Amino acid sequence: MRNQNPVFIPGPTNIPDRLRAAMNVQTSDHRAPDFAESLQPLLEDLKKVFKTETGQVFIFPGSGTGGWEASITNTLSPGDKVLVARYGMFSHRWIDLCQRHGLDVEVIECPWGTGAPADLFAERLAADTDHTIKAVLATHNETATGVLSDIAGVRGAMDKSSHPAMLYVDCVSSLASMDFQMEAWGVDLAVSGSQKGFMLATGMAIVATSQKALAAVETASCSRCYFDFRDMGTANKNGGYPYTPPIQLISGLRASLDMLFEEGLENVYSRHFRIAEGVRVAVAAWGLRLCAESPDLYSDSVSAIYVPEGFNSDELTNHAFNKYGVSFGVGLGEMAGKAFRIGHLGELTDVQALSGLATIEMAMKDLDYPIELGVGVAAAQEYYRSTTTAK
Amino acid sequence: MRNQNPVFIPGPTNIPDRLRAAMNVQTSDHRAPDFAESLQPLLEDLKKVFKTETGQVFIFPGSGTGGWEASITNTLSPGDKVLVARYGMFSHRWIDLCQRHGLDVEVIECPWGTGAPADLFAERLAADTDHTIKAVLATHNETATGVLSDIAGVRGAMDKSSHPAMLYVDCVSSLASMDFQMEAWGVDLAVSGSQKGFMLATGMAIVATSQKALAAVETASCSRCYFDFRDMGTANKNGGYPYTPPIQLISGLRASLDMLFEEGLENVYSRHFRIAEGVRVAVAAWGLRLCAESPDLYSDSVSAIYVPEGFNSDELTNHAFNKYGVSFGVGLGEMAGKAFRIGHLGELTDVQALSGLATIEMAMKDLDYPIELGVGVAAAQEYYRSTTTAK
Amino acid sequence: MRNQNPVFIPGPTNIPDRLRAAMNVQTSDHRAPDFAESLQPLLEDLKKVFKTETGQVFIFPGSGTGGWEASITNTLSPGDKVLVARYGMFSHRWIDLCQRHGLDVEVIECPWGTGAPADLFAERLAADTDHTIKAVLATHNETATGVLSDIAGVRGAMDKSSHPAMLYVDCVSSLASMDFQMEAWGVDLAVSGSQKGFMLATGMAIVATSQKALAAVETASCSRCYFDFRDMGTANKNGGYPYTPPIQLISGLRASLDMLFEEGLENVYSRHFRIAEGVRVAVAAWGLRLCAESPDLYSDSVSAIYVPEGFNSDELTNHAFNKYGVSFGVGLGEMAGKAFRIGHLGELTDVQALSGLATIEMAMKDLDYPIELGVGVAAAQEYYRSTTTAK
Amino acid sequence: MRNQNPVFIPGPTNIPDRLRAAMNVQTSDHRAPDFAESLQPLLEDLKKVFKTETGQVFIFPGSGTGGWEASITNTLSPGDKVLVARYGMFSHRWIDLCQRHGLDVEVIECPWGTGAPADLFAERLAADTDHTIKAVLATHNETATGVLSDIAGVRGAMDKSSHPAMLYVDCVSSLASMDFQMEAWGVDLAVSGSQKGFMLATGMAIVATSQKALAAVETASCSRCYFDFRDMGTANKNGGYPYTPPIQLISGLRASLDMLFEEGLENVYSRHFRIAEGVRVAVAAWGLRLCAESPDLYSDSVSAIYVPEGFNSDELTNHAFNKYGVSFGVGLGEMAGKAFRIGHLGELTDVQALSGLATIEMAMKDLDYPIELGVGVAAAQEYYRSTTTAK
Repeated sequence: MRNQNPVFIPGPTNIPDRLRAAMNVQTSDHRAPDFAESLQPLLEDLKKVFKTETGQVFIFPGSGTGGWEASITNTLSPGDKVLVARYGMFSHRWIDLCQRHGLDVEVIECPWGTGAPADLFAERLAADTDHTIKAVLATHNETATGVLSDIAGVRGAMDKSSHPAMLYVDCVSSLASMDFQMEAWGVDLAVSGSQKGFMLATGMAIVATSQKALAAVETASCSRCYFDFRDMGTANKNGGYPYTPPIQLISGLRASLDMLFEEGLENVYSRHFRIAEGVRVAVAAWGLRLCAESPDLYSDSVSAIYVPEGFNSDELTNHAFNKYGVSFGVGLGEMAGKAFRIGHLGELTDVQALSGLATIEMAMKDLDYPIELGVGVAAAQEYYRSTTTAK
Repeated sequence: MRNQNPVFIPGPTNIPDRLRAAMNVQTSDHRAPDFAESLQPLLEDLKKVFKTETGQVFIFPGSGTGGWEASITNTLSPGDKVLVARYGMFSHRWIDLCQRHGLDVEVIECPWGTGAPADLFAERLAADTDHTIKAVLATHNETATGVLSDIAGVRGAMDKSSHPAMLYVDCVSSLASMDFQMEAWGVDLAVSGSQKGFMLATGMAIVATSQKALAAVETASCSRCYFDFRDMGTANKNGGYPYTPPIQLISGLRASLDMLFEEGLENVYSRHFRIAEGVRVAVAAWGLRLCAESPDLYSDSVSAIYVPEGFNSDELTNHAFNKYGVSFGVGLGEMAGKAFRIGHLGELTDVQALSGLATIEMAMKDLDYPIELGVGVAAAQEYYRSTTTAK
Repeated sequence: MRNQNPVFIPGPTNIPDRLRAAMNVQTSDHRAPDFAESLQPLLEDLKKVFKTETGQVFIFPGSGTGGWEASITNTLSPGDKVLVARYGMFSHRWIDLCQRHGLDVEVIECPWGTGAPADLFAERLAADTDHTIKAVLATHNETATGVLSDIAGVRGAMDKSSHPAMLYVDCVSSLASMDFQMEAWGVDLAVSGSQKGFMLATGMAIVATSQKALAAVETASCSRCYFDFRDMGTANKNGGYPYTPPIQLISGLRASLDMLFEEGLENVYSRHFRIAEGVRVAVAAWGLRLCAESPDLYSDSVSAIYVPEGFNSDELTNHAFNKYGVSFGVGLGEMAGKAFRIGHLGELTDVQALSGLATIEMAMKDLDYPIELGVGVAAAQEYYRSTTTAK
Repeated sequence: MRNQNPVFIPGPTNIPDRLRAAMNVQTSDHRAPDFAESLQPLLEDLKKVFKTETGQVFIFPGSGTGGWEASITNTLSPGDKVLVARYGMFSHRWIDLCQRHGLDVEVIECPWGTGAPADLFAERLAADTDHTIKAVLATHNETATGVLSDIAGVRGAMDKSSHPAMLYVDCVSSLASMDFQMEAWGVDLAVSGSQKGFMLATGMAIVATSQKALAAVETASCSRCYFDFRDMGTANKNGGYPYTPPIQLISGLRASLDMLFEEGLENVYSRHFRIAEGVRVAVAAWGLRLCAESPDLYSDSVSAIYVPEGFNSDELTNHAFNKYGVSFGVGLGEMAGKAFRIGHLGELTDVQALSGLATIEMAMKDLDYPIELGVGVAAAQEYYRSTTTAK
């Protein structure tokens, strides 16, 4: 019966029927003209989602982590210095990936619950007068803590010292859910995946590059082949792939883009805000606290919520799954045991969101949390009903 | 976005993924041996759901109404007298169908919200000493009012006067959701469909007959052909159909029966009771009233709920659909404008039920119903959390 | 493994993926505004397929046989005389249905393999000076013999004697595959189904009526309810159904109409002709004979083929199914044992048709038919390759 | 209409409906207990397909090329010497991948159309007395030429000189189609993917390792992270993934393994042989020549076929696609323009294979190849009919 309930994990999202249908296609020939003809428009349309006109997009069979690897290995060389702030599990993992590819990673440790520290970045970059720092890495939406960082601010910090480093952004769980402006924010490498804002099955790393990043490919000496931009770029130009492409996912991506454009990206963002805000008013009504330290950091795709002292969030998510058949995000890394997460990205409706809030309320009550049944739901109901407009 | 939300209509139900997959099969030959081999076991398994060992089941391409027509035209003759009580839209429609096939219908008018009147039936049958009444018709679950009738009681009333009339029961919206015992209750004709307890798409009338009913076929002179039991029975015996069968639905029915038996019919019934009871405690918390006049009449597949004086239930269901993208059952017939319905049959989970309750609460609040947001949800949460066991 | 092979039965057809997707939709509310809004355009578009501007179309949950019953019971009265020619299994069954509804059926026996006998009709109608004949019934495409009748010719025969009888046509296996012109040919009732030219699952009887036929509904006294045009017409006008509609099939029908119109009906017909003609040249190459007695009678949706003296066609079709996992149509009625059928309607491609021809050749060879392997295929290849144009 | 025809490319294969259904599942939580519980049995069952008891299997989101990268980067260090024979496009690409990861690749150039040269390997290994060669790489089934190599023979050559090098085998297009015996043949790294013998969508690299290979991971210094066996192994042990797993594909893999085991691997292999042999007799009947130089090298998953002198195979495959809507494999690398390929792996039936043969015959005839229509088909028909047994 579990299949009937929505998931409330921060991706993969509940897949809309239209996209399930679009992915459920029979094999066709990836070397045939119709594949070739459809590939270029798809890549062009992806640029609209990243909001870049001069950039280039690559789609690799893989997960978002593969996208990180692609971005790093294609544009940097072992020993290159990169500046990163660690403020969650995904920034942590990206750091690890950089280190394993031989980069010299300068880490700024930040409290989990905060975002990319533009001021500290500015400091370090200003101090780096000989420009040894080749890249600044930032996680736009830190899925572990539900924190959205100010990427424009990071770019501002970089510009302040006119530092030539490139800006790499993990937008896996923000793209197509919250505003992302690759070109306006001066992002050089933006990494995303199929299973979040695109609402598809997991399996595609979607990476956008600036022209500056593409130029860096020529000198970058990190070893790579599977994720090499050059092979992919050349093959794409000829309407193909350097190896077998995941045509079912690519078919789904076409439909996903159609859905996003039909609704309008700005409407997609405000819909995500609205669903998220309903969750946040419920959290407030419960008297619980978000991991994100201040409202400007609130993510609209996931909320990480501290459980009260003396409670274990893993027990809560396990209980919700075992008793009610509903999946919520567990606490990751430093948040393990301390926080649970409600994913609210993709096509999740207010109606579905309410069922998630009702469920976690029941689970908290079962485990003797100091929670009154229905208060979070009621707060969200009030918010949703006063903000919905007829469809 | 509406597709993401469950429907809360009293059928067709939300279709479980397993059944969607089972119905999504390519054409195969209905005259091939494998179809023939699978048909007889399917019909036998249906008997288990009807709880008859001596009866016979027929599956017609059509809706439940077609099942009514099949039951009547195969076993009765124009001018035959039948005794029926009208206590809702579906008993009303069945009466109409009987009249249009030339039957002499003796109607007992009952208040909507009550069920089959065993005592009144007993009276009429006792008075019918020359046995002109050929059949008693009862709607087991009156979908318009959310009333479940006591069919065993009706049979008791018939037996009291040792009346030889046959008993016809509409179990369209009760079979495979609530207890139904064809043989124990002495039902001669039981009419159901694919889109309720079987959780499939609409398109199959499923009719079970007693041996007594089958014997009546020989002398019944209502004109019929498409729904003729004889053609169907003969063709079925040879592993086929008298015309093209709906193989996708039949494939789905196989999977549906598998699901029902895996869970166990008694467990299916108690699951329906539990989901329904949660809805009923919410209704009580709202201070609203069910159409069903007393607890013994409560249906576990649908609740019909009176709106307060001065409110229009059609406005409410329209509003819920237009603003929240959620479908509830409208008031039918006498209940038009006065009551709305929450369908809770099929694989609906407690989690989904809560989303329906939360939605209708918002809709009521929007329309200035004297309702406090969250109270119905909270009551249902309390009921559900105290009655669920880990899955 | 059988599922991988196409079927070569004369319907249901192999279902195109696009239509499988369109039918694989979750439940939505058939009483909701969006259903209502989509119903009228669908019915209007169906009129284009029937080629009628003044007529009206009804869609019943049921099979084509239900459509026959609807056409008869809605427009005729017991005792009414109808004129029919029996020249195959489906005309035979329609006669039976008429008789069981109390009509006085005047049957013209014709050899199977011939079509509707316009001249004999003309004779009878001319002789019927007091106009006791209320209707002439003709099977446009006799699926049992692969014979296409000249309906315009039948109408001509009727017009010759200015006979006021209505013209009823079974176009189940011709509509949307071969030219059908309801209005131009003066057809009053045209009966079709979902599983042939519309390429959908079985489950909808699709019936078109002229205004004259609609007028006859008022006085027709055949008993009916489920298939009553009046209930359906009234409900349809209000955007609904008199009972639960098969929304998955209706969703499929929308997509089917889209496909037909995108290709263009005339192109659909010529595609069917081309596929059929390839089969016919193969039959000629085998030295076998079609049941259809002359080229003007050849059906483009199915070919019925006599097996040589001394061979049993049932053995052949069984063998093909059991050994190769491919379904062909069996010989029906008078053709049982004498002829097998190759269905070639719907989206069947020349490539698929060749696989069917290759299979039946192997099966014939296995059973010692005087056939040389490959000759039928080669003939069809030559025809197909010289008539295909790049897609 | 193209979707209706099978593809005849050597992977991705035509996907059986059962597997399409298995991949068409809604999102579930990859961190939930049920995912964890199903992962280990899946990995164990994969070992049965690789025929290894002591090995370990890893599933990465990616294509087969990602599997190559995983095998190399996890077990070797820059500068390590590997011995490879180039005899087709895929061995060529693997060489390229090794070089780009800094390996010292000793290439044995072999004519395309031959297989792994056990004798030449033996020679080189014997000469490598100080054991600088760390690995021997062989492509089991060279998809570009339709050549199956004798991996047991390669292992024999290695054993002859008791050389300690590891044996890496690309079995992407052979596993689950032709016999592969990882343990018996002493294979240390076997690389496959989801879209060939497993009949699934593209998107998983499936890699099996020996314990010796696993031991090498500890010292291997090729940089890696996404494809790191250690992260994957650790996560798998805990029932999870180091990043988001492709659950739809994993669900499909479960069903694929069920299908393979239900049929029996040996039956799967003989079925592939039979389908392939039918294609080969057709090729012989056409008077054409396979790229594979001798029968012991014939692949049962793909046949690469030389076009006659003066013809261009690209023109042929384009023509077949454009005119008949059927995809065949193009000539790759050295074979570009010289050979086309017929893929015949997966669930392809004899009936479907015949349609491919009939199509390419038509295409050849259209382009004035010296081919008589039907001769290849007839030869294949004769072979298939004399080798099929009732299903």
